Amino acid sequence: MTTLIASAARKLARGGKRRICFPLTNRAYYGRSQLLIRKLHAHPEIELELMLGGSILLDKYSQHIADDIEAGGFTISASLFNVIEGGNHVAMAKTACLTALEFTNGLHAINPDVVIICGDRFEQLAIAMAAAYLNLTVAHIEGGDVTGSIDESVRHAITKLAHIHFVTNEDARRRVLAMGEDPGYVFNTGSLDVELAARVDTVLAGDRVNSHGVGHAVDISQPFLMVIQHPVTSERDNREHLETTLRAVAMLDMPTLWFWPNPDAGTAEMAESLRHFREQHGAATEKMRFITNVPADEFVAMLRQAACLIGNSSAGIKECSFLGTPVVNIGGRQQGRLAADHVVQVGYDSEAIRSAVVAQLRHGRYAASHIYYQPEASQAIVDVLAGAELYTQKRFHEPANH
Amino acid sequence: MTTLIASAARKLARGGKRRICFPLTNRAYYGRSQLLIRKLHAHPEIELELMLGGSILLDKYSQHIADDIEAGGFTISASLFNVIEGGNHVAMAKTACLTALEFTNGLHAINPDVVIICGDRFEQLAIAMAAAYLNLTVAHIEGGDVTGSIDESVRHAITKLAHIHFVTNEDARRRVLAMGEDPGYVFNTGSLDVELAARVDTVLAGDRVNSHGVGHAVDISQPFLMVIQHPVTSERDNREHLETTLRAVAMLDMPTLWFWPNPDAGTAEMAESLRHFREQHGAATEKMRFITNVPADEFVAMLRQAACLIGNSSAGIKECSFLGTPVVNIGGRQQGRLAADHVVQVGYDSEAIRSAVVAQLRHGRYAASHIYYQPEASQAIVDVLAGAELYTQKRFHEPANH
Amino acid sequence: MTTLIASAARKLARGGKRRICFPLTNRAYYGRSQLLIRKLHAHPEIELELMLGGSILLDKYSQHIADDIEAGGFTISASLFNVIEGGNHVAMAKTACLTALEFTNGLHAINPDVVIICGDRFEQLAIAMAAAYLNLTVAHIEGGDVTGSIDESVRHAITKLAHIHFVTNEDARRRVLAMGEDPGYVFNTGSLDVELAARVDTVLAGDRVNSHGVGHAVDISQPFLMVIQHPVTSERDNREHLETTLRAVAMLDMPTLWFWPNPDAGTAEMAESLRHFREQHGAATEKMRFITNVPADEFVAMLRQAACLIGNSSAGIKECSFLGTPVVNIGGRQQGRLAADHVVQVGYDSEAIRSAVVAQLRHGRYAASHIYYQPEASQAIVDVLAGAELYTQKRFHEPANH
Amino acid sequence: MTTLIASAARKLARGGKRRICFPLTNRAYYGRSQLLIRKLHAHPEIELELMLGGSILLDKYSQHIADDIEAGGFTISASLFNVIEGGNHVAMAKTACLTALEFTNGLHAINPDVVIICGDRFEQLAIAMAAAYLNLTVAHIEGGDVTGSIDESVRHAITKLAHIHFVTNEDARRRVLAMGEDPGYVFNTGSLDVELAARVDTVLAGDRVNSHGVGHAVDISQPFLMVIQHPVTSERDNREHLETTLRAVAMLDMPTLWFWPNPDAGTAEMAESLRHFREQHGAATEKMRFITNVPADEFVAMLRQAACLIGNSSAGIKECSFLGTPVVNIGGRQQGRLAADHVVQVGYDSEAIRSAVVAQLRHGRYAASHIYYQPEASQAIVDVLAGAELYTQKRFHEPANH
Repeated sequence: MTTLIASAARKLARGGKRRICFPLTNRAYYGRSQLLIRKLHAHPEIELELMLGGSILLDKYSQHIADDIEAGGFTISASLFNVIEGGNHVAMAKTACLTALEFTNGLHAINPDVVIICGDRFEQLAIAMAAAYLNLTVAHIEGGDVTGSIDESVRHAITKLAHIHFVTNEDARRRVLAMGEDPGYVFNTGSLDVELAARVDTVLAGDRVNSHGVGHAVDISQPFLMVIQHPVTSERDNREHLETTLRAVAMLDMPTLWFWPNPDAGTAEMAESLRHFREQHGAATEKMRFITNVPADEFVAMLRQAACLIGNSSAGIKECSFLGTPVVNIGGRQQGRLAADHVVQVGYDSEAIRSAVVAQLRHGRYAASHIYYQPEASQAIVDVLAGAELYTQKRFHEPANH
Repeated sequence: MTTLIASAARKLARGGKRRICFPLTNRAYYGRSQLLIRKLHAHPEIELELMLGGSILLDKYSQHIADDIEAGGFTISASLFNVIEGGNHVAMAKTACLTALEFTNGLHAINPDVVIICGDRFEQLAIAMAAAYLNLTVAHIEGGDVTGSIDESVRHAITKLAHIHFVTNEDARRRVLAMGEDPGYVFNTGSLDVELAARVDTVLAGDRVNSHGVGHAVDISQPFLMVIQHPVTSERDNREHLETTLRAVAMLDMPTLWFWPNPDAGTAEMAESLRHFREQHGAATEKMRFITNVPADEFVAMLRQAACLIGNSSAGIKECSFLGTPVVNIGGRQQGRLAADHVVQVGYDSEAIRSAVVAQLRHGRYAASHIYYQPEASQAIVDVLAGAELYTQKRFHEPANH
Repeated sequence: MTTLIASAARKLARGGKRRICFPLTNRAYYGRSQLLIRKLHAHPEIELELMLGGSILLDKYSQHIADDIEAGGFTISASLFNVIEGGNHVAMAKTACLTALEFTNGLHAINPDVVIICGDRFEQLAIAMAAAYLNLTVAHIEGGDVTGSIDESVRHAITKLAHIHFVTNEDARRRVLAMGEDPGYVFNTGSLDVELAARVDTVLAGDRVNSHGVGHAVDISQPFLMVIQHPVTSERDNREHLETTLRAVAMLDMPTLWFWPNPDAGTAEMAESLRHFREQHGAATEKMRFITNVPADEFVAMLRQAACLIGNSSAGIKECSFLGTPVVNIGGRQQGRLAADHVVQVGYDSEAIRSAVVAQLRHGRYAASHIYYQPEASQAIVDVLAGAELYTQKRFHEPANH
Repeated sequence: MTTLIASAARKLARGGKRRICFPLTNRAYYGRSQLLIRKLHAHPEIELELMLGGSILLDKYSQHIADDIEAGGFTISASLFNVIEGGNHVAMAKTACLTALEFTNGLHAINPDVVIICGDRFEQLAIAMAAAYLNLTVAHIEGGDVTGSIDESVRHAITKLAHIHFVTNEDARRRVLAMGEDPGYVFNTGSLDVELAARVDTVLAGDRVNSHGVGHAVDISQPFLMVIQHPVTSERDNREHLETTLRAVAMLDMPTLWFWPNPDAGTAEMAESLRHFREQHGAATEKMRFITNVPADEFVAMLRQAACLIGNSSAGIKECSFLGTPVVNIGGRQQGRLAADHVVQVGYDSEAIRSAVVAQLRHGRYAASHIYYQPEASQAIVDVLAGAELYTQKRFHEPANH
């Protein structure tokens, strides 16, 4: 199976280093992986190659990422524009396929020893598939959780393509083992997001907050809300669900930082509904600021200081478990995910959302939970990636009790 | 998420019928699925759409398939050329990506209620991914087995994207449940291949056999061997492994029907090694005939009449379990798959292969095993596909004992 | 070169009809082609197949197009999402490639006798290439003009792939012949845009105008400006060029309908610059309304009533030549295109633009020019498409005087 | 239009060098471009980047190319597997599209000053399109000729996308100018193929000849024939046409070196017909040897020593014009190409071919023609590429007499 030299990169002497490729396709993953990326880059036995694709190349925050990357001296092996417009299922599926096609070329050229796959986004499964087909070792971060949306299928399918598993909690570890993975390669390292949340001590300044996004200035000296509500690809009423939340938040009449959803299937109609609501209920949005993205440390600072987080983001389940921020989680997107006491679950119902928030505000902050927390998550991952014996042929490990 | 009309097909009144799409990408899957296809087509509540892609469009046997399809009055919704040349891992991975991209368009246009995914080939996972991202219900046939090669990863990843599971044996059922699938949607129907094998009563005629393939005429009135050895994508020595088998078979000096491997990663070098061996050891191949493919019923007839099957084909494990044909299975491709007594496992070692075959020839045929057999596999699948309540949002079902 | 049945469509008896495929990728082309589409659809000897792709599937105006198409009873053979996000050259190039890939499948399935390629957009060349490689006859509308931008290369490259040429003026006819095309297949039919402009008698109502787009309400009972400035892909200063125009228009302080540019390379930065200007110079935009698109007849009505059209749109050169609307054309995009007296050409200079507009306002409307006008353009095209003998093998026709 | 860093390559200081990218997709182009590649590589002001794609990665000759490339110290920037199997028009069209998609990524990463496009193959137009859309300067070698097949359309479409033109003869120069190209950028440098043919002094050894290909050994001490007959994509009878030639050559009963056709649309059926003929008329092929490819210098040596070249290869028109080898050119593929006296044109007719060959054998070798010859073609091209002022915005240059 020799082929012509794919690129100069393949020929580089590695000097005994392990070459690790980290495909970054989403600003959220970049944000939460900063500690990991820095430690991989600094490791004397590791040669780190970052590959960029997907939506990370499209938003303005990318400039920030590019600056970070340059400042860090990291190598970017490829930048691949492969997001297909449409904001619907077809565009999402085709984006995944095109991403896989292009990363195949990139991975073939780089020929890494390990490819890191993060989380449960649709394009990450596509890259995992490409990597597995290239007979490369795949390391997966954040497997074994259960949630709703297509993420639920994506996450477990990645698990079954991956060789090394970094899970964030014991429930997840149990599930990954039940699915037949090798116990010697399943590591509960805790969550990178929570490790970052625990380390960040950035304090929010009002001016800085209002330098992000569009809409009205928000007074963060007052108790304020954060909203992050992503589309749920397996549901058909995303637009209606968003409007339900908009109505609830309008009723609460508090300063609100509203984060724009991910560019997934369903985004187009959510964007439409946000715009529509702003036009129809201008007054109701007078205390809202709409933000696309902020640096990871500022995001943590916002989470820490918010009076309540509303929506369906994993940050509500994970980071907030440690930070103690009250959370009102809406709908099925996080369905089944291990959650601490700080989370109140509600359905798509304006009044239910409103009253749950009121109750959470009354309760105030929670004690820190450590269900997702280990102090050295990133270091634990690096240690395994640097030292574990690598393999490619998977075998189904029957749990011991069978 | 409304889009413009994708095609006339989307708008067709379905008359209450369930639209089921069956992507066919490989002649072997078509062969073993014939009973299923006919029953789906005949069912009054089902509208069957066949989509063709991958290698099924490339081999000459396709004409036979096309004739079958036309004779059966089936609808072919799309024919997509998407096999990328190279015969290596890169070409395999890119073929999968391109297949997924094109089937996304096709599935979007057809908008089926269910997509049937068969087995564990790399392009079938790609199609399953596309279908899942389009929020369609995926039904998987032959999940839960364990084997070697990339097939092992592919099969289980499909399971985690699929909603309805048709497994062929109880071990497989147990594993699919361990992986968190809904017990109400996991059906042990037995194997379609074995059902077909049990029904076929074609008797081999020598002239007919020698009308297939190239090489020397084979005298099937004598005890003869069959060889089917596919590349193992996760191994690097496919060429050497094939030559090991070639040497063993040459030593046995018996009439031999040698089947050409699948067009997967590794094919190119296996083709090279077959050609090389024929040129160097012309005499040693004097009793060999090299065959690309034959109609499914003739294949079964050959299996039934062969004195021994050698290689790493699933037909050795499945069909032959029922037919009682002795099998010498080589290397890791079928590693871990449930097997009856008729299978002797050996490594990549000419002498070991030769002596295992000699022992099998001495033993002669085995009694029929029913581990993969149920008399009405295809009907059972059709009944579920026609009647089961369909869903798309997956949930991880924790096994009862946790 | 027989292949398996590509689709049901290929097998349909055509009843002696000529099957003509019209790929629509852009709302502007759809707008100006309405008369042609209706006549093709109504023709008893023609079977029309519309294929949709590119940006036409993405904007909200699509709903209008879909309604039209359904009302007209047209057949849409395929809807292909293939616009890659980025708004830069890479995204544009990859969009073209993906478009060509997907239209290849579509054209192969439809197997038309003729494929109509319109104008000079980058994805139309890609489709023309696909059609030519499929050995189909290509008919090109609007070849032979000269302009700036990448359009200049695209247009002539399409000419060299096309078999039947419908040009809009005698200069264009001369150039198409100079390029070696067969004189028997080059037809000066006049411009479809101008034919439509001549037929539309819609009168603008202020309410209707202000129902489109965003920004301030515009008082069209006053003399008003229209601005349409597209990016020029071969220039690197699109953002600066746009701001130059913004400053000039702000100085003119008149009601202004500003049309959003095409989704081409350069759009992203133009969008950025529009947003930036609006934020920085809010007051200066108080008389501006920003419009994405309007139905074709309303567009003509706006052109007819505008006091002056500013920018680099072909509508300034073509439709306005007949309508007599004064035009200030900026920069190199229309460089070299045949223009009547109503066009004043200026460079990227705010003061030059401003004073040219002032001069045009002083001059007022021009007499109708017929350089692009023939009363029955669409009928002439239909007659040729229905009756011309079709061919695929091109030959270079040396002009007579050599 | 700034994007994130596409690759390390983009950031490399060029030290004032002009970066020139040469996409190689076909072994024939590599063969004839060897002198050019070496001179580009050696030039102190040029940084040469080779990109490999298409069929050049697939044939066994690639190893030879790879060795050459490594021995020469050249940089290969990318190796892209993008040939889609099928051997028909659809596969050809999709191969072109996929090639363009992947080369867009490669060219974006490399960011060259000039992209060299060679000849008239379908994938070269696709790459030219990608390069033009990326706003890069395109240099085209061998424009302006006229021939049959799809090549005729492809060649002129490339001309209309290219900025610098290297033609091989005065007729071609006249046509390129007629098509509106800038006279300052059209250079008649003569043919690279012929320059190479003039420089090669390799003498054929029988053993060496018979080390290539398969079939019977050929005695080259006897007068022998060469056959090179490619499919003609715009014709539907390629298989029949090939069999016509096979019959003619069989009647001539001379030692024959038969070159396998290019992997274009039509190849599959030609391969079929060759195999069929060999099986049916084994005796008739007893003096034939079937060769896929040989190093460029040996190819020239064969051409020089052959008693007659039969088929439709441009080598018959170009190299043989200088070498004086008699040529019988069959059918429309080279229709209209400037030819010297050594070419006899015949139709698809066995008897006509046979008698034309007999007449040519009687005539014997021709005097060298210089219609395609200039002694320093490669140096002339390098000088222009190193020194010409580069531009991207094309303008149609009206010929002086208008």
